Amino acid sequence: MSSTRQSYNHELENLRCDISEMGNLVGLAIGEAVKALAAQDRELAHKVMAGDDMIDGMEVDIEDKCMVLIATQQPLARDLRIIGTGLKITTDLERIGDHAFDIAKIALKLAGEPFIKPLVDLPRMTDMAQAMLKDSLAAYTSLDIALAEQVCQADDGVDNLYQQIFRELLTYMLEDPRTISQATQLIFVARYLERVADHATNIAEWVIYLATGRRMRKK
Amino acid sequence: MSSTRQSYNHELENLRCDISEMGNLVGLAIGEAVKALAAQDRELAHKVMAGDDMIDGMEVDIEDKCMVLIATQQPLARDLRIIGTGLKITTDLERIGDHAFDIAKIALKLAGEPFIKPLVDLPRMTDMAQAMLKDSLAAYTSLDIALAEQVCQADDGVDNLYQQIFRELLTYMLEDPRTISQATQLIFVARYLERVADHATNIAEWVIYLATGRRMRKK
Repeated sequence: MSSTRQSYNHELENLRCDISEMGNLVGLAIGEAVKALAAQDRELAHKVMAGDDMIDGMEVDIEDKCMVLIATQQPLARDLRIIGTGLKITTDLERIGDHAFDIAKIALKLAGEPFIKPLVDLPRMTDMAQAMLKDSLAAYTSLDIALAEQVCQADDGVDNLYQQIFRELLTYMLEDPRTISQATQLIFVARYLERVADHATNIAEWVIYLATGRRMRKK
Repeated sequence: MSSTRQSYNHELENLRCDISEMGNLVGLAIGEAVKALAAQDRELAHKVMAGDDMIDGMEVDIEDKCMVLIATQQPLARDLRIIGTGLKITTDLERIGDHAFDIAKIALKLAGEPFIKPLVDLPRMTDMAQAMLKDSLAAYTSLDIALAEQVCQADDGVDNLYQQIFRELLTYMLEDPRTISQATQLIFVARYLERVADHATNIAEWVIYLATGRRMRKK
């Protein structure tokens, strides 16, 4: 193998590492945002919000690397798909980062007021969405199609839990108008987590495309 | 100019046309979705929902064209940015299409029940978001940086209107619990429209990058 080809492979590998790293970071941010919400931890909420700039910066760096790779190499087949999916997956990851920011902002808003009910389902939904993200990133690293398909299938479970949480919060609002303001915010949190799971599904679908060249439908 | 170069330029131009066409289509879908909501027109809502598959198909076609262009040409500088931004802008457009679908679904849900208040602000917000999208697409076609910057600045107006609509719907809910279910759905509509404006802003920022190579922050 020529040293140019070796260095090119190394750069492609670096790109994949960067994407995994960005993925781990946004997964962590989602977990911390919901933790800040549940524990009414203002400091942690501020930390998550401050971290969003770094995540945005990673997106720009990865996109720039993709552009340089296209310009300096003539990527074909799977190499090309690594770069193309790189440009797409960063959008999903950046949106997950945004949702962490949004949830942390709600955590700040609700810190200090008692919860209308113990937060059980939202942390459970967070675990599900985080697990999907983690699996989609593991599938990305090892090009594991079966694992990617598993992520796609898991999305229905999160959608169902979202519907359940939404309906339950609606009944709280109907029974006691004093819960309306908080319940509306918690519905948003549930919606953001449902979107995180959608983005994890998108990533899993990009993994299938990356590995096989076969396109899936996006969420 | 060689005929290969001419054909390449032609393909890049085609790509830009496809993106504009997809943009016009999702802009139309948003308008029709809100019209279906306001006029309680179930048929129109179904039409919008049925149209989403075509929008998704356009995204895949455009992405495939981008990949073929990278593989068959060695794009550099602005040509490369046309392709790179093509891959990114389609994500924003596809999400706008999703929001049209989401709003149409809510239109179906609310068709037949009287509105808790005349729908004035949501159509106004729709006009603003649609105008931003239209301007961002015009800026894309003519690489008009000033127009793109105008779109970015317009986003604050939509954000403010969203906050106003959100607060107003909250007061309806607080005053009369019978409005809760509908008001919650209308808050979602407002949120989707606010996101449409964000996506238009993203597109405008990609236009600035396309024209200048300068990166902006995404929403």
